[in-house]
Amino acid sequence: MEQMEILDGKIELPKGFVASGVFAGIKRSKKDLALIYSERLANISAVFTTNRVKAAPVILDMERAKKGKAQAIVINSGNANACTGEKGIEDAKSMAKKVAEVLEIEEEDVLVCSTGVIGVPLPMEKVLKGIEVAALSLSKEGGYDAAHAIMTTDTFLKAVTVKFNVEGKDITMTGFAKGSGMIHPNMATMLSFVLTDASVEKATLDKAFKNTVNRTYNMISVDGDMSTNDTAIVMANGMAENKAIQEGTYEFDLFYKALEYVNKTLARLIAKDGEGATKLIEVNVINAKTENDARLAAKAIVNSNLVKTAIFGEDANWGRILAAVGYSGADFDVDKVDIYLKSAKGEVKVCENGSFFAFDESLAKEVLKEKEIFIIVDMKAGEFMATSWGCDLSYDYVKINGSYRT
Amino acid sequence: MEQMEILDGKIELPKGFVASGVFAGIKRSKKDLALIYSERLANISAVFTTNRVKAAPVILDMERAKKGKAQAIVINSGNANACTGEKGIEDAKSMAKKVAEVLEIEEEDVLVCSTGVIGVPLPMEKVLKGIEVAALSLSKEGGYDAAHAIMTTDTFLKAVTVKFNVEGKDITMTGFAKGSGMIHPNMATMLSFVLTDASVEKATLDKAFKNTVNRTYNMISVDGDMSTNDTAIVMANGMAENKAIQEGTYEFDLFYKALEYVNKTLARLIAKDGEGATKLIEVNVINAKTENDARLAAKAIVNSNLVKTAIFGEDANWGRILAAVGYSGADFDVDKVDIYLKSAKGEVKVCENGSFFAFDESLAKEVLKEKEIFIIVDMKAGEFMATSWGCDLSYDYVKINGSYRT
Repeated sequence: MEQMEILDGKIELPKGFVASGVFAGIKRSKKDLALIYSERLANISAVFTTNRVKAAPVILDMERAKKGKAQAIVINSGNANACTGEKGIEDAKSMAKKVAEVLEIEEEDVLVCSTGVIGVPLPMEKVLKGIEVAALSLSKEGGYDAAHAIMTTDTFLKAVTVKFNVEGKDITMTGFAKGSGMIHPNMATMLSFVLTDASVEKATLDKAFKNTVNRTYNMISVDGDMSTNDTAIVMANGMAENKAIQEGTYEFDLFYKALEYVNKTLARLIAKDGEGATKLIEVNVINAKTENDARLAAKAIVNSNLVKTAIFGEDANWGRILAAVGYSGADFDVDKVDIYLKSAKGEVKVCENGSFFAFDESLAKEVLKEKEIFIIVDMKAGEFMATSWGCDLSYDYVKINGSYRT
Repeated sequence: MEQMEILDGKIELPKGFVASGVFAGIKRSKKDLALIYSERLANISAVFTTNRVKAAPVILDMERAKKGKAQAIVINSGNANACTGEKGIEDAKSMAKKVAEVLEIEEEDVLVCSTGVIGVPLPMEKVLKGIEVAALSLSKEGGYDAAHAIMTTDTFLKAVTVKFNVEGKDITMTGFAKGSGMIHPNMATMLSFVLTDASVEKATLDKAFKNTVNRTYNMISVDGDMSTNDTAIVMANGMAENKAIQEGTYEFDLFYKALEYVNKTLARLIAKDGEGATKLIEVNVINAKTENDARLAAKAIVNSNLVKTAIFGEDANWGRILAAVGYSGADFDVDKVDIYLKSAKGEVKVCENGSFFAFDESLAKEVLKEKEIFIIVDMKAGEFMATSWGCDLSYDYVKINGSYRT
């Protein structure tokens, strides 16, 4: 990463971007409306939830994202505008229309995201008023306010900025996100926004974004549920004035690495901040026959309630890990699998060739006391790997999700 | 069901069957070895875990079940004989060999099941001694002992007997099972045994058993994990001396109903006794386009941690139910879906046409206070339905699964 300057936790808006986050009154007291604006129409790529039950703004954005261009994104928290019928679609359109009016841009170039309670109509008067205030508040420093305004039960802000140089031009890429735990009050959402002043060809941007999303946000799991509102969007406005990046070049590799780093960092932070989580779990499946086998196994492990509770209990319960690989759908030979547990305290092999391995229980205990736990599964079947991220399953998960409305 | 006498919770061994359950010393103090024996070689059908990581006895039984005949089943609890390598296979074979010796039957006609800790070799001296004692203890009344000896963290015995008449012959069918929670210490297993003195053609028995298993055991979920040892076996020894039952007859319908009732009863009891469960959840997806759509939706709902925690918290959180249907893979139209919550206290519609429905919150609260909760999802898309069973997700689930070895 020597070609990149990494600013973890920081938001530095790239050239031509301004943002804001304000209190519109959808939530009781916290900031709940964010606005992102680019001076110049930006190339964009976006991915959305694959849930058939899609929130109104997702339905709207899926259509608008097809042209690969956008200039502004408006996001509200506190209400997901999901399961709201025809009225919901109208409300999402009205939000975009209002943004277009106050920013004097095309309505079609505005994307809309929502997160929060489902099945309840948006308080549109407040929302539209909020958009006016947000537009007046736009600033170069407004990224933090925007990042705060999209939060729901997140316990910390998730952001990162990377800077690199392409053909003498300074490029900035900043990303911020909110958590994926299906959260207060009915459920919530993963929202992620990546902004860059790099000039990138539309098709190239699309390919790079979708590939990295597949290896980052699509490899995290808090509880296996999938929201109606999940959305990740990248905007590249080209104001760094570099020659448009194309695939197959050194510049592309650099851009791709930066994008992957931003998405991976945000994905990890989301996993770490899973509801009730006390530990971050990173699963590395290595030496798999195909990348798909590695992905299936890595996702099954990080999704397993039994693995998650074992990690919460700091129990080196390798049988649960092996069993999860077993039902993952991955093609592998049980008799070859080795499993390791790792953390800052060390590494311990807990299973060899699919069978019990006489490991040091006290070392395993020490390893599992840490806050970041790595599970390494060596399939010894090929040369592909995959990484997934998740969190443990704690009493607080049950508490947060069991007692909201009571 | 007027043609059937139902004895819930009872085990009455059919003609020609004897059983026993003894303490072999695999567990610390409880019964841990069961034996089932039929005087006459019985037609059998069996289904096994689809986990690629299969316990040694499962690997053995899958081969032996192919011929569709068996005369005895030996089951031990306290040790799953899984992830035990070549030695595990040898041990499973030795168990069968010992049973064959003491009962003077063919080794090939003995099936073996294990449940308990994985990755630890069986204490074979104790197991073989236990088999000798179990053989000496076989009796007509031994079903209860057998049912107790297969239990692990089950909190109650799961058994049912039904009696019916075929062409003047009295038929008895009895079933007992142990829980499916992936349990103490590493994980455990669903084991189910159905015994009948009916005479049933082999292919007919196979078809009836697999069909009913698909609609019963395969529709329950405690935590979405799948064990290395799951096994369900039916034995029909023909000693009721009825004319062998064939498909497409009135007798078959009766037999099928009885078998389905037994499997459904045991499946429900397993769901009800899920680890840490405080409520049984039954999901009915109705008016689906295809049976598969109904099954996918029903399973996704009962598997959702968010639905499970909401039911634990007695929260009428219909958005989570709809979202689970959304990612289930089922083909449906969101704008048509109605959702109802039901219990002994009444029924309340909580979602209409995929949107919020102004329901009576206090009635919903009352409904959810009960111990058996029904979730009804009306897709209004066709005429197929499916039912699934599960349980809520409580603090105790986390406790049981998080703190075993600590």
